[in-house]
Amino acid sequence: MKLSQLNNYPLIAVFGGRKAEPNTLEEAYNFGKLAAKNNWIILSGGKGGVMESVCKGVSESNGLSIGILTGNDKKSANPFVSIPLATGVGVSRNQIIARACDCAIAIGGHYGTLSEIAYALQMNKKIISLNSWNIKGMKKAKNHKEAIGIIKKWLSKR
Amino acid sequence: MKLSQLNNYPLIAVFGGRKAEPNTLEEAYNFGKLAAKNNWIILSGGKGGVMESVCKGVSESNGLSIGILTGNDKKSANPFVSIPLATGVGVSRNQIIARACDCAIAIGGHYGTLSEIAYALQMNKKIISLNSWNIKGMKKAKNHKEAIGIIKKWLSKR
Amino acid sequence: MKLSQLNNYPLIAVFGGRKAEPNTLEEAYNFGKLAAKNNWIILSGGKGGVMESVCKGVSESNGLSIGILTGNDKKSANPFVSIPLATGVGVSRNQIIARACDCAIAIGGHYGTLSEIAYALQMNKKIISLNSWNIKGMKKAKNHKEAIGIIKKWLSKR
Amino acid sequence: MKLSQLNNYPLIAVFGGRKAEPNTLEEAYNFGKLAAKNNWIILSGGKGGVMESVCKGVSESNGLSIGILTGNDKKSANPFVSIPLATGVGVSRNQIIARACDCAIAIGGHYGTLSEIAYALQMNKKIISLNSWNIKGMKKAKNHKEAIGIIKKWLSKR
Repeated sequence: MKLSQLNNYPLIAVFGGRKAEPNTLEEAYNFGKLAAKNNWIILSGGKGGVMESVCKGVSESNGLSIGILTGNDKKSANPFVSIPLATGVGVSRNQIIARACDCAIAIGGHYGTLSEIAYALQMNKKIISLNSWNIKGMKKAKNHKEAIGIIKKWLSKR
Repeated sequence: MKLSQLNNYPLIAVFGGRKAEPNTLEEAYNFGKLAAKNNWIILSGGKGGVMESVCKGVSESNGLSIGILTGNDKKSANPFVSIPLATGVGVSRNQIIARACDCAIAIGGHYGTLSEIAYALQMNKKIISLNSWNIKGMKKAKNHKEAIGIIKKWLSKR
Repeated sequence: MKLSQLNNYPLIAVFGGRKAEPNTLEEAYNFGKLAAKNNWIILSGGKGGVMESVCKGVSESNGLSIGILTGNDKKSANPFVSIPLATGVGVSRNQIIARACDCAIAIGGHYGTLSEIAYALQMNKKIISLNSWNIKGMKKAKNHKEAIGIIKKWLSKR
Repeated sequence: MKLSQLNNYPLIAVFGGRKAEPNTLEEAYNFGKLAAKNNWIILSGGKGGVMESVCKGVSESNGLSIGILTGNDKKSANPFVSIPLATGVGVSRNQIIARACDCAIAIGGHYGTLSEIAYALQMNKKIISLNSWNIKGMKKAKNHKEAIGIIKKWLSKR
């Protein structure tokens, strides 16, 4: 990943909640690791749980993640976020993450994640479900590897 | 409904899309009519389809509806909205409708409606499904009459 | 003011801060009283200070005010707001008040008020300054009576 | 600037309008160049004029800028933005830029810039005025060099 090439890299949103099963957290972590190796910039809510796991993976692959935070203070981001953006608009920031991304993946997650999925679908963004909600229009993936493969294919068709 | 009593009246959100089956539009219209007779202030996205039908019902019962609009111009509201509020924040206004209400009902609707449902559930707001999404945590109603009854019960327990 | 006529009434925003001199609060109160008699619906931030004074005036004239609140709870509104709308988007709601109004008046106020004034001017909305910021493009009024007169003139030209 | 160190770098907001005098655009460009050399990440509205000039300077110093866009499409960013974030919330994004930054500078600009200045001051963020609005609480700088020096001092005291 090169600083001078950032504006060529895809923006991939990871939707997911603060609470998740160990297996789901591990999928998120591994997704982050591989995503960074593909030079994808990861957008997320920047908090704990799935969001923290994916950012940890990104960080360990020397990638770049942006945390779009609900609150007023960038210190509320998990420690693995590369660039924390405090928005001050609460969960209204869910719409922004869906809007800003090229495509998305939902990993685990509860109602907050569902609002992000719904927005992404409303905006005609392609979106994967990995251990997450099963909403018509989403593409199911069994694990992070399959998810990476699907997104690669989507990006190649842009 | 008395102007001087407005701040005692419940705020009921109606989530629903611009496209809907005739039967769903009729349920929305009838829900609006009865809701207004119960002195409920109706919040909605203020546009067409289900939103227009419910506002028409409210209007014919001399009730009050607020249309929380995506765009910059209050003229984009359907003609039955009592007070059109142009927000300029796009579908990000979905979060506001869920936030501002005491409880909610989804009538028909597609992905936009799903984002509103998800927000309401995330905020622990009680919410009915009438010919709409079937998401865990929602209370199903067969028709507008049953929906009115359920909401009455919810409001009596506040 | 008639419920059935609400969508014909102008939406007038009152920008103003939580802290103000007694004289400024009185001007806000009297502005609210006269505004309601003119069948203007008052939009404000719905909190204390100037916002509370103007809503008190509106209330005593049996008018209608909408409080567009920063927080998550409609109980955070001052007691004179007719319809409290909790947005959950923090001071980002300042943009919404400026967007939703037909024209505006700033009464007293500090930096929050200045952001609302700036937005209104950016949106080409006419705006009065009464004991408030003096920004190019605003129309100065000496007192609430003069302010009411200016707004009447503006509205007659719509 | 190192990818692995991003979360240690300060976030500096540049407020400024789409139209500006050549001299102001040059100051913005030179500010961007020096800011990037100091490892400051630049936040801006990501559009033309002052925003484009500052991003051009950042880009030529191999720095990193984030464009927080009003619209729905990341292609609306100027070509020098490193990471374009489409928010879809219109000028409501002004609040986000002020919220996310550690400190700010206004360079030229009109009413939109004034809303950003007002927000920054409301949030107690330190902010410089360079050929821009003169609002109580701002620190005036004669040129980009002086501005860089002032911000360095501010950051050293964090």
